[in-house]
Amino acid sequence: MSDKLYLSYRQIHRTVKSIARQIERDGFDPDVIVAIGTGGFIPARILKTYIDRPILMVGIRAYDENNQLTERPQKIQWIDEVEKKLTGKKILLVDEVDDTRTTLEYCLNELHSHRPAETAVAVLHRKRKEKRGVIPDFVKRYFAGIEVDDVWIAYPWDAEDIDAHCDIADARDRLAPPQGIG
Amino acid sequence: MSDKLYLSYRQIHRTVKSIARQIERDGFDPDVIVAIGTGGFIPARILKTYIDRPILMVGIRAYDENNQLTERPQKIQWIDEVEKKLTGKKILLVDEVDDTRTTLEYCLNELHSHRPAETAVAVLHRKRKEKRGVIPDFVKRYFAGIEVDDVWIAYPWDAEDIDAHCDIADARDRLAPPQGIG
Repeated sequence: MSDKLYLSYRQIHRTVKSIARQIERDGFDPDVIVAIGTGGFIPARILKTYIDRPILMVGIRAYDENNQLTERPQKIQWIDEVEKKLTGKKILLVDEVDDTRTTLEYCLNELHSHRPAETAVAVLHRKRKEKRGVIPDFVKRYFAGIEVDDVWIAYPWDAEDIDAHCDIADARDRLAPPQGIG
Repeated sequence: MSDKLYLSYRQIHRTVKSIARQIERDGFDPDVIVAIGTGGFIPARILKTYIDRPILMVGIRAYDENNQLTERPQKIQWIDEVEKKLTGKKILLVDEVDDTRTTLEYCLNELHSHRPAETAVAVLHRKRKEKRGVIPDFVKRYFAGIEVDDVWIAYPWDAEDIDAHCDIADARDRLAPPQGIG
């Protein structure tokens, strides 16, 4: 068995629900959800079931065609005309993982330049590791579903064979259910 | 038991894989995937695992705040600067369901106005019912995972309780596995 952390869709969905509960308890009431693609697309759509706000999507490429980290993230799609509407709004930025933090830092700063009322961030997984990027000081709320070691996370949407993937994930889930944080 | 069709994430993922196989067999090789939000977000992200192309997202609202169908779809987010890059490209438009066809017709025409080389469409589910919209003549390829009666489809991402949802979906799946078409 590898050191990969296999996660089923059910586990992801439950983690999103736990984040929604954290956000409610915190009293944060976003006007809009901004999802970072492609990792944040599925978590953001599930989150909308619990926190029903419009979702804007931004496409970011952090790796080049050789799967090497690029110097800085590149925009595939940004929100353009819509971003004018971000001024004065409370934004919840969503991604799947807080890994090196490079993409999060980039997106948080880009969004902040449109003078929102607040920019908060939510991730499914926060990796315990040294970060290359920082969460800027203007970010007052950071929500994470689960804290994990610096392992490869195998997300279900990347599975070629979803049944084999979920069987591994479910078997491990019974052995050691991951704990929420925050 | 209601007449709702409950679907698990595993079923959705398998349906996306079957669509990817259809597209491959057909020989269609898109340059870009355009997902219609919010229903197409999750199918499009899964599809990327099998057909690795950039995803652009468009946000469309077909229902108003009272959950009534609006006269015509409204853009929440469109692709703006990126749409200039659609000229000459092969586009695969993705949504979760071909229901009334209003949203599909709207998006297909909008995309076509940017003179792509081709615009194809893929949906998880095609409902057998009278359509209010039409698939324009310029669309030569239409892919659907499963054809279903005109029932309410309960998608997993809309589930408040994902375990209860998937238990119903899995139990029915064992009784009558849905068949692919096309």
